[in-house]
Amino acid sequence: MSTKYINEFLDTFNEIGLTEKGMNRIAFTENESKAKSLFKKICKNEGLSIEEDDIGNVIARREGEDPSLSPVTTGSHLDTVINGGKYDGTAGIVSALEVIRRLNAKKIKTKHPIEIICFTAEESSRFGISTIGSKFMTGKLNIEQIKNVKDSSGTTLKGALENVGKKVIKIEKSLKQNKPLKSFFEVHIEQGPLLENNKKNIGIVTGIASPTRYEISIKGKASHSGTTPMHLRNDAFLGAAELSLAIDEIAKKEADKGTVATVGNCVVSPGAMNVVPETSKIQVDIRGINSSSKLKVSAEIQEVSKQIKSSRNLEISIYQLMEDKPVELDQNIIESIEETCNILDVPFQKMISGAGHDAMHMADICPTGLIFIPCKDGLSHHKEEFTSFNSIKIGCDVLENEIIKEAISIK
Amino acid sequence: MSTKYINEFLDTFNEIGLTEKGMNRIAFTENESKAKSLFKKICKNEGLSIEEDDIGNVIARREGEDPSLSPVTTGSHLDTVINGGKYDGTAGIVSALEVIRRLNAKKIKTKHPIEIICFTAEESSRFGISTIGSKFMTGKLNIEQIKNVKDSSGTTLKGALENVGKKVIKIEKSLKQNKPLKSFFEVHIEQGPLLENNKKNIGIVTGIASPTRYEISIKGKASHSGTTPMHLRNDAFLGAAELSLAIDEIAKKEADKGTVATVGNCVVSPGAMNVVPETSKIQVDIRGINSSSKLKVSAEIQEVSKQIKSSRNLEISIYQLMEDKPVELDQNIIESIEETCNILDVPFQKMISGAGHDAMHMADICPTGLIFIPCKDGLSHHKEEFTSFNSIKIGCDVLENEIIKEAISIK
Repeated sequence: MSTKYINEFLDTFNEIGLTEKGMNRIAFTENESKAKSLFKKICKNEGLSIEEDDIGNVIARREGEDPSLSPVTTGSHLDTVINGGKYDGTAGIVSALEVIRRLNAKKIKTKHPIEIICFTAEESSRFGISTIGSKFMTGKLNIEQIKNVKDSSGTTLKGALENVGKKVIKIEKSLKQNKPLKSFFEVHIEQGPLLENNKKNIGIVTGIASPTRYEISIKGKASHSGTTPMHLRNDAFLGAAELSLAIDEIAKKEADKGTVATVGNCVVSPGAMNVVPETSKIQVDIRGINSSSKLKVSAEIQEVSKQIKSSRNLEISIYQLMEDKPVELDQNIIESIEETCNILDVPFQKMISGAGHDAMHMADICPTGLIFIPCKDGLSHHKEEFTSFNSIKIGCDVLENEIIKEAISIK
Repeated sequence: MSTKYINEFLDTFNEIGLTEKGMNRIAFTENESKAKSLFKKICKNEGLSIEEDDIGNVIARREGEDPSLSPVTTGSHLDTVINGGKYDGTAGIVSALEVIRRLNAKKIKTKHPIEIICFTAEESSRFGISTIGSKFMTGKLNIEQIKNVKDSSGTTLKGALENVGKKVIKIEKSLKQNKPLKSFFEVHIEQGPLLENNKKNIGIVTGIASPTRYEISIKGKASHSGTTPMHLRNDAFLGAAELSLAIDEIAKKEADKGTVATVGNCVVSPGAMNVVPETSKIQVDIRGINSSSKLKVSAEIQEVSKQIKSSRNLEISIYQLMEDKPVELDQNIIESIEETCNILDVPFQKMISGAGHDAMHMADICPTGLIFIPCKDGLSHHKEEFTSFNSIKIGCDVLENEIIKEAISIK
């Protein structure tokens, strides 16, 4: 296969929203719209027909010999986080386009239609809500409930949709919700270091670990840093520090179950050099595909919070921000991808996805496969996010094989 | 003595800058100027002559029988922190005014002149520089070096001074720098819980523990919270947490020397729920009057930082923001105040001041006494800061006795 197209596709998308600090094609902005327009143009050039649903997911269809058969679908997203990378999402769209290009070049006809889905607004960095497009497509999004959510500049989700030509009142046409799909495949960068560390080219995702999230508020007593003896302090930050270290230890004990926990932020108030901290808020993110392991971590966090509350004479309140159930992916598809990797002689490993993806919602409505490719240093959501041409090419090879298997066979 | 004047003085100052969140007479603002104007008015009513130096310290003089003798001085400040209390500083000014009022009412003449000094800008909360007025008065402030320091709204110290009618170019007239003072006394709330806990009315300060301050930057590696296994993380916040707990333990071991250490703030970056923290910055404040104990604490912080750096594979850099030497106060004055407390039958204790005060600079140029009065729950820099009328009255009684002793005797 020529290397030309993959790089051309990537480069042309990544001209849109390129800044010194990273890629900026934020959900429901002009840059995301531009990227989707470019996607439509490439698809039309490849002879696909285009539809767009009421929230902005684009579906490009390569007709099958029997148009009445359920389509085999593949795709990902073109929006990025603020100052994001060039591969998160985009690699999956490029892989899908490359597979269609190859099928066209090789004049392969399939029984089933093949569709590329370009999901809108996968990243949560603008509105704090992730995978808006795939949630909508799978009937999980109540737009009425969330239309007034605001971004950091005060624009509502409703306003943002209107700015890209979507009327909230009309968002009712979810194209795929009631139409059966044969299957869905997504190629995505791992966003972690395992494939690179283990020198594997493909990660076959067996399950997606959606997060349980807590905000924990710790309240002590503000006092003067110079005049308050050590034994008369109720230092909220030290409570937060002890709790955060404990959370790390608790998660480490569950490492064999693939559960991880992170304190991603800590805000200290009043945050002054000369005041013993009165309050500290920490944000905790727990992920894993083993539900009972996640529950165990949550329970132990509750327990250790009680101990710290008592030993340090603090008030500690735990607020659950979200708790999504882990998603298990289709066993037949996992085996099929495994078989493909063996045939192509591609080093692979089965793994879980610690991050959420559009595939996790698609798994609700059809058999779904998620194919990871390596990600340099595990670095993602960053301008230096990188995966090599060769990694994407191998991803395309595997995806092509899977799509041909699925779309030619009639079940 | 009548209770009337102390409360009247307090109330009239605390009408200026009163808000729901606390007192706001911030350094070099209109409110501080208003409070100083009120101070001048009261002093004029009591027959004192007024001078103001080039940075805004106000000196009010009650002439002595021999105007050529060095003045006995007393005072404090009228500026507050943001959302501060009604007594920090103000109690000292009110005590000084009350003593003058009593001397006038009793028609007591003194050999030495008596001066009240109302220092400007004692609090560091606006520009991060404390005791600007007393530093200037004692020749320690190089205004050229700091005139471009900015407050949080971007106003420079130079601009702030100009806004209250001071031209930076003219700030050269430091009234007291080259004129001998007989002594200086400051009444101040303790800002700590010891007097209240020990049921003492007066704290005789033997030394002032000026701070050593560090900013410690910890750098790890940002990675995805869901996809990075626990054992492959370089979590900067966990490093900060471990170090902060260690600093607390290190200071506790030095409790018998009166040394304290506080991590007053921690800033985590990028501070996102789904990113393992890349950097954390903590601010450390170490205080004590035992220099070798403070040095020991600093050395142990260096040592434990090295251990954490190595065990967690982080970069840790320690930047010293300031290191002021502890100040010992005048032994003769300490004994004199002790004698006064015994004569007045006032329960007292000797103690160190964990907080800095204008008195610590005045101690450089004349024998200085710092008289603490109790502070409810040790709460200061807070709208609920409180000391009772009776506490202030006892402070005034002690101050009056000291000033009479000093100003009548000729040495």
